[in-house]
Amino acid sequence: MSEFDDATALTAHSDGTYSATLSDDWSIGDAVNGGLLMSLAAKAVSDAAADHHPHPLTFSAVFLSPGAPGAATVAPTVLRTGRSMSTAEVVVSQDGTERLRALVTMGDVSAQAEPIRKQTPMPVFAPIEECIAADNAPPSLAQAGLLKRFDLLMDPETVGWAMGQPSGDGEMRAWIRFADGHEADPVALLTFLDALPPVAFDLGAQGWVPTIEFTGYVRAVPAPGPLAVRLRTSTVTGNLLEEDAEIWDSTGRLVAQSRQLASARFPA
Amino acid sequence: MSEFDDATALTAHSDGTYSATLSDDWSIGDAVNGGLLMSLAAKAVSDAAADHHPHPLTFSAVFLSPGAPGAATVAPTVLRTGRSMSTAEVVVSQDGTERLRALVTMGDVSAQAEPIRKQTPMPVFAPIEECIAADNAPPSLAQAGLLKRFDLLMDPETVGWAMGQPSGDGEMRAWIRFADGHEADPVALLTFLDALPPVAFDLGAQGWVPTIEFTGYVRAVPAPGPLAVRLRTSTVTGNLLEEDAEIWDSTGRLVAQSRQLASARFPA
Repeated sequence: MSEFDDATALTAHSDGTYSATLSDDWSIGDAVNGGLLMSLAAKAVSDAAADHHPHPLTFSAVFLSPGAPGAATVAPTVLRTGRSMSTAEVVVSQDGTERLRALVTMGDVSAQAEPIRKQTPMPVFAPIEECIAADNAPPSLAQAGLLKRFDLLMDPETVGWAMGQPSGDGEMRAWIRFADGHEADPVALLTFLDALPPVAFDLGAQGWVPTIEFTGYVRAVPAPGPLAVRLRTSTVTGNLLEEDAEIWDSTGRLVAQSRQLASARFPA
Repeated sequence: MSEFDDATALTAHSDGTYSATLSDDWSIGDAVNGGLLMSLAAKAVSDAAADHHPHPLTFSAVFLSPGAPGAATVAPTVLRTGRSMSTAEVVVSQDGTERLRALVTMGDVSAQAEPIRKQTPMPVFAPIEECIAADNAPPSLAQAGLLKRFDLLMDPETVGWAMGQPSGDGEMRAWIRFADGHEADPVALLTFLDALPPVAFDLGAQGWVPTIEFTGYVRAVPAPGPLAVRLRTSTVTGNLLEEDAEIWDSTGRLVAQSRQLASARFPA
C-alpha cells in the first residue's frame, strides 16, 4: 500500500461518516498539510457520491483549525446528483472541532478532458536532473514529515528565497512526485496543488502562511510520471496574497489548477 | 433606495434566517443572475457575522438550481469568529429547494488593502466613451431584465462575438456601473464579477453557460466611478472552461478577482 493510500484510508460507518487517522508524517510545522486533508475529504465524497462521479472536478475549502495527528472524522453530504455531476459538502473534524469544510463538484474528469480547445501552455522548467531536492527542512521547523513524502525538485531559478535571496517575482517551479513511486490520481492532485513551499517566500515572507480559502479544479487524469507545478502570485496587499497553482503532467497537459488566498508575514 | 439595495433587501427572523424576494429585473434567460444571489447571500452573512467583519474577503459558491422570481430564504451560519476574520456558510433556497450554497470568509477589506506590494496591472481598456452599450439583448432571450440594471460598455476590441465573429482569444473587457448611479461596495463586487456575458462567447459558444463553481476574492473597497472588468479563459477542455475575472476601480486599483468553472456548448 502506498503512503498516500495509507494516509487517506477511510472506514465507512452506517451513519454516512468515515473514520480516518491523521499523521505527523504529513505535517509541516504544527499542522497536518492542508492538501492531504483535502484529498482525504475528496476521497470520502467520492465514496459517498454516485459511482459514475468519482473525481473532484472542483474543490473549495475553508480551513477552520489546523489538523493534528490522531483520529479524524470525515462527514460528506451529497446535496444534488445530476447527470454529469454531483454536488456535495464535506467536513473534516477531530474531537468535534472542524478542521476543514468544503464544497465539492464530483464528476468524471475524463469525460470532459477532450477535445483540448485551448490550454495554458507549460512554461519552461529546468530539466528534472538539474533541479534541487527540497527534502531538507529549515532547522527552525521541528516537524517536517511532509517533505519526506515527496520527491520535490525545485527549479534552480526559483530557489533564491531558500538561500536568503528571494527574487521578488512571486513565482516557484518544481517537479513533484510521491517519494514511494505511487502515481497521482485526480484525488491526489489536490495534495499536489498545496505541497510546495508558499510562493510568498519568493517575496521575502517567512514563517507560517496559512490558507484562508482554497479552490482547485481537476481538469484531466494525469499521465504517469512526474508532475510540473508552477506557483504564481500577482496581487499582494497588506498581508494577503492569492497563490495560483498549475500542474502539468509528463505529456505537457494541464491537469489541475487552483487559487488560494493566504496570509503571510512580509518584511517591513 | 437604489435598485441594488432593493434587490438585496433582507428581513431578519428570530431563527437566524432572512427573507428576500428575487425579481425578473435581475434575470437573464430563465434564471435570476448568480452574481445577484451571491451578493444577497453575502449581505446576510455580513449581518450575521461580527460587526468588525463586514466584507466578504472570499466567497465560494456552488449553484444547485436556478433562482426564480419570488420569495427566497437566506440562511447564514457563522462557523468561526476569529480576530481578523470570520468563516461562515450560507444557503439561498426557494420553497425548500437550494439555489446556492457558499463558504464565506468575512473580514475588513480595508484593513488588508495597504500596502500594495504587488498588483495585477490594469490592462489597456478603450476609453469609456468609445465603448459599446450592451443593453440590447439578443432576440432569442425572452428575459433580460439584468441588462437594464447596469451601464455595461464593452470594449470594441472584444465584441466581435456579438456580431457572429468571436475572436477565439477568450477575452472580454468592459466598463460597468449600476445604471441608477449607485456606487459599488464590497458586497456588490460579487455581482459585478458575474455580470458580463460569458467569456465562452468569445470562443464561439452560444446559449446558456451555467456556472458550476465560483470563487471570488474582494481585495479593496472600490473608489467611486465606473469599474473596469476583464474576463479571460486559458484552458478549455471538452465543454468545461475556467473564466477568470478581474475588476479595477477608477484609480486603477485591483479591487476584486474571481475564477469560475463553467460549462459551455461549443461549435463542433
